[in-house]
Amino acid sequence: MSGGADGPDALDPLIRTVLDALARGAARRGGPLPEGTPRELAAEVVRAFTAADGDEALGLLTEVLAHGSADPADPLCAAHLHCPPLAVAVAADLAVSALNPSQDSWDQAPAATTLETLLLQELAALVGYDPVAAAGVLTSGGTESNLMGLMLARDRVLGRAAGRQVELAGVPATGARPRIFASSAAHFSVARSAALLGLGEDAVVSVPVDHELRMLPDSLAAALRESADRGELPLAIVATAGTTDTGAVDPLGRCAELAAEYGAWLHVDAAYGGGALLSDRLAPLLDGIERADSVSLDWHKLGWQPVAAGVFLARRAETYASLARRAVYLNPQDDEEAGYPSLLGLSLRTTRRADAFKIAVTLRTLGRAGLGALVDTCHELARQGALAVRAEPRLELHAEPVLTAFLFRYVPEGADPAYTDEVNAALRRRLLREGRAVVGRTELPGEGPGRVRLKLTLLNPRTSAQDVARLVRTVVAAGLAEEEGR
Amino acid sequence: MSGGADGPDALDPLIRTVLDALARGAARRGGPLPEGTPRELAAEVVRAFTAADGDEALGLLTEVLAHGSADPADPLCAAHLHCPPLAVAVAADLAVSALNPSQDSWDQAPAATTLETLLLQELAALVGYDPVAAAGVLTSGGTESNLMGLMLARDRVLGRAAGRQVELAGVPATGARPRIFASSAAHFSVARSAALLGLGEDAVVSVPVDHELRMLPDSLAAALRESADRGELPLAIVATAGTTDTGAVDPLGRCAELAAEYGAWLHVDAAYGGGALLSDRLAPLLDGIERADSVSLDWHKLGWQPVAAGVFLARRAETYASLARRAVYLNPQDDEEAGYPSLLGLSLRTTRRADAFKIAVTLRTLGRAGLGALVDTCHELARQGALAVRAEPRLELHAEPVLTAFLFRYVPEGADPAYTDEVNAALRRRLLREGRAVVGRTELPGEGPGRVRLKLTLLNPRTSAQDVARLVRTVVAAGLAEEEGR
Repeated sequence: MSGGADGPDALDPLIRTVLDALARGAARRGGPLPEGTPRELAAEVVRAFTAADGDEALGLLTEVLAHGSADPADPLCAAHLHCPPLAVAVAADLAVSALNPSQDSWDQAPAATTLETLLLQELAALVGYDPVAAAGVLTSGGTESNLMGLMLARDRVLGRAAGRQVELAGVPATGARPRIFASSAAHFSVARSAALLGLGEDAVVSVPVDHELRMLPDSLAAALRESADRGELPLAIVATAGTTDTGAVDPLGRCAELAAEYGAWLHVDAAYGGGALLSDRLAPLLDGIERADSVSLDWHKLGWQPVAAGVFLARRAETYASLARRAVYLNPQDDEEAGYPSLLGLSLRTTRRADAFKIAVTLRTLGRAGLGALVDTCHELARQGALAVRAEPRLELHAEPVLTAFLFRYVPEGADPAYTDEVNAALRRRLLREGRAVVGRTELPGEGPGRVRLKLTLLNPRTSAQDVARLVRTVVAAGLAEEEGR
Repeated sequence: MSGGADGPDALDPLIRTVLDALARGAARRGGPLPEGTPRELAAEVVRAFTAADGDEALGLLTEVLAHGSADPADPLCAAHLHCPPLAVAVAADLAVSALNPSQDSWDQAPAATTLETLLLQELAALVGYDPVAAAGVLTSGGTESNLMGLMLARDRVLGRAAGRQVELAGVPATGARPRIFASSAAHFSVARSAALLGLGEDAVVSVPVDHELRMLPDSLAAALRESADRGELPLAIVATAGTTDTGAVDPLGRCAELAAEYGAWLHVDAAYGGGALLSDRLAPLLDGIERADSVSLDWHKLGWQPVAAGVFLARRAETYASLARRAVYLNPQDDEEAGYPSLLGLSLRTTRRADAFKIAVTLRTLGRAGLGALVDTCHELARQGALAVRAEPRLELHAEPVLTAFLFRYVPEGADPAYTDEVNAALRRRLLREGRAVVGRTELPGEGPGRVRLKLTLLNPRTSAQDVARLVRTVVAAGLAEEEGR
């Protein structure tokens, strides 16, 4: 057992096994990911999974996991919002694993309950909320946080008393179709949340974006007006602060004005861009976020935490009633009256890991300024990467980076749009197969060929400008090889 | 950074700091939880959170977390389905934190993608499913798993084509109110899921239970028949395999028959009872689970994993379509055709920690038999605890343990129901405040006073029968002290 007075001694040799196996796996990998096809890699995992037995299982499987990782700590692994965690955050998370507090009742997590509350107050202040008036909870990530924001929006507008749930069954009787407004570059979890909440994916009105993938405010205004003219119910506006692909920040102030005008809930998905709040240089990009009714933040993106480190915040605690819940075995009323606090009514989950702890330790260790410097470093790396792309005649930059990511593509001979798409997709798989680099791939909004783009997401502050230049050259070489092979 | 070739060296001294601080915190606590009121404990956490700074933050905050824990590794901490994790599982989880794979795309988790698939096949077989036909995903716990089962039930019955979402807005037009049938002792997440899904909490029909809190099958049959007579839509039956309070297992075979008869989805919430599948002695309690359309399992309960280790399984992969999702930046079609698998369409989350890894390592280290022996030990401890309760004239046992938990209460002089409730609630808070024991408290289903019960949940296989007897005596002493103080 990992807890109790002798837990640390029980853990010690096992952790030694893990660290050794991690080192062996990383050495054997020797790059951002292992060479091979998915089928070859899967065969290796199947062999280990079948062979692993008894006391040797931990070392054997850890080595396979490390060897078979796409390691965001490698400078040539720069595809996704997938960060290399800080060692201090990982060490803190070990304490959480060992003690196993669960945030659904005080008597499973006495200290962790207070720590989560304190951390949330600090993060609320970072967003610009009044920390006393705000409320929030740790989540599994932006997808859950976006769901929570839209759930509160639904329950507020469609009406519900505390403890009784909204009946969507009542909606069509009123004839007013509920609508959610989000840009065409908003995260897919917005549409998925609408479906989960019973509103249907097509409750989401897709608002056009500019070249940088930033929501067009006039289009939002027009969409709201047309919807109102149709007698629909404007449930929520979801503004994105940091789109997944370009880091673009929607016009938050204008979104807040329109939300107020139409009586809609404003949710800001700052899962990626929230990290900018740590940087004095970049924080102004998010001006207006403090007017949002709720926000999503993810510290496993620009915050260097191991997954999960999502945060949901609501500006006013009193709007946060949907989940209020009395469970007789978790938070009986007389216990709360006797001073035993409960976080149960804040989360969609019941059992819940103390993810706040690693974030709190990281913030205290590095400070906002220390973390902000890491954000600035990654931003600068992205700018250097964009410069390197511009310097390559075979590459085409889509737009300058806003945060730490940018899109580009390889332009083959002839530049036929469908063929260009094909070559870009194939060169990326070639890089994966050869174990050379993990580069992102996406598509611009819209229809038809010519929309495939490659993506670099710079989240590793230990990467150098030279590393990024090497990564860009590696992409060009793969493009040339791909063209030659055809 | 924790990854890469030098990650292990960076982690080493920080992990030393954590293990030392865990030992200090546990020693200072010296019992199942720290002495003091919630306010006093919170003040200590606030002081540390405010003072922690720089390189000292990790050790300082870890010590506070450990001191301020309700530690399930202590034999006198036996309130909730809150298990002491196995050291090997905690060590495996460290590898996951350090490498930070994310299960939403292959290129963030090459080996972890295969490992999760292999583990799920093994667990499907454990449930009695055909592992080739089944599908599943790791979840944050029973609450998320129950939500997924009910989402699939909703989307199947209310109809949806792949990629298009159900419109609940269309429901009342048909006049058929969707209904979910669950016992009055089912987990509250069933009602909460109904609300989240837009069905309304009152879509849940509460089926009466027997003394042991087991669903009455004739009552279920009657409820289904009456609902059908009202022209309602039987969306799902939720059977509980291991209620939170008594471990009671609903009549699974009869539930399966009735689900087939009424065309309802059968979801089995085996978040607690699923652990019985590891034990040859207890597995027969769950006969019939293999007929469920979907199940919830939680290895952070009877499986000794650090949170989170939830599992959702569907018997037939083709019923698992609601979440099928093409995200151009995560699982483009041509990458899947080229052999790059994706788990994205299986989860409600996007970014997702590789929680399968620690479970896989644990299963390989101990084997099903090794884990089954731990389950049997805890079951036997619960039986010993019930015997100890029966031996105390001031205690009243509610029912014999089915799995590893049982309810009882202290019966004060006079035995007025409201006063008895008050004394039991107060003696539990006294035990918490004095740092002596963490005992559960719940209420039996129904109305009126006299329903408060204390609960012991035995999840620590290192606890001895003597420890349990001591815990029972501690409860009696607290009851006497509570009566005296009045």
